[in-house]
Amino acid sequence: MATTIFSKILAGEIPCHRVYEDDLVLAFLDHAPLSRGHTLLIPKEPAERLDQLSDASAAAIGRVLPRLCRAILQATGATAFNVLQNNGPSAHQAVFHVHFHIIPKHKDGSGLGIAWPAKHGDDVEQKALATELGELLTHSG
Amino acid sequence: MATTIFSKILAGEIPCHRVYEDDLVLAFLDHAPLSRGHTLLIPKEPAERLDQLSDASAAAIGRVLPRLCRAILQATGATAFNVLQNNGPSAHQAVFHVHFHIIPKHKDGSGLGIAWPAKHGDDVEQKALATELGELLTHSG
Repeated sequence: MATTIFSKILAGEIPCHRVYEDDLVLAFLDHAPLSRGHTLLIPKEPAERLDQLSDASAAAIGRVLPRLCRAILQATGATAFNVLQNNGPSAHQAVFHVHFHIIPKHKDGSGLGIAWPAKHGDDVEQKALATELGELLTHSG
Repeated sequence: MATTIFSKILAGEIPCHRVYEDDLVLAFLDHAPLSRGHTLLIPKEPAERLDQLSDASAAAIGRVLPRLCRAILQATGATAFNVLQNNGPSAHQAVFHVHFHIIPKHKDGSGLGIAWPAKHGDDVEQKALATELGELLTHSG
């Protein structure tokens, strides 16, 4: 995996505003926040995308999310927030090391902007896709 | 916690296109997808928001995300995707039971739309906030 700004942060080569660290994960403030309290949570394991991350690192990320969110809400006074994790340039990934954004949504409107052009799913097609996914998950590690 | 469409799905009172289930989590296709393969991953534990979820359920969500993402990419042919989790009406939460969206971003552009009005953080303010968050996390469960 190529060197990224996050691998350099993990290596201590460039500074960050650290808020949490354990054996498997690191959390720090985003240097270009969408809103006050915008925090990044990353695995120490080098993985570009979430589908490439180990179960253990992904579980460690999950485990720390609730307490990290509680601290961010308490410190900023926000009552709403988004957790966002992007994979691939077309999905807005800019740093190619897995990272979860925790983005408070403040009363002044600052935070993540979301466009939600939902369509109703075709039921027959959805049933076939669910079956295929279920089979893939049954036979995968 | 109030009854929601997801608690009814968990209770088997309304159907879903299920793709994965274990003791702690359930994944199924979103009935109004942003793109083909749009999947929801929810804890069985009743919690409205991620900051209210137990560590165990949050870890179980994290653990299954990589394999679920791999299956979705394989079944749909997508190479990019977003994971999004919304908390609070102003942050786009519409069903008040914790849920993670996994949303493929397809070559036709279908998927999640994101607005990213980032600003550069004030370094002094960021340092103070990181210190406060670190202290909150040190003293929290």
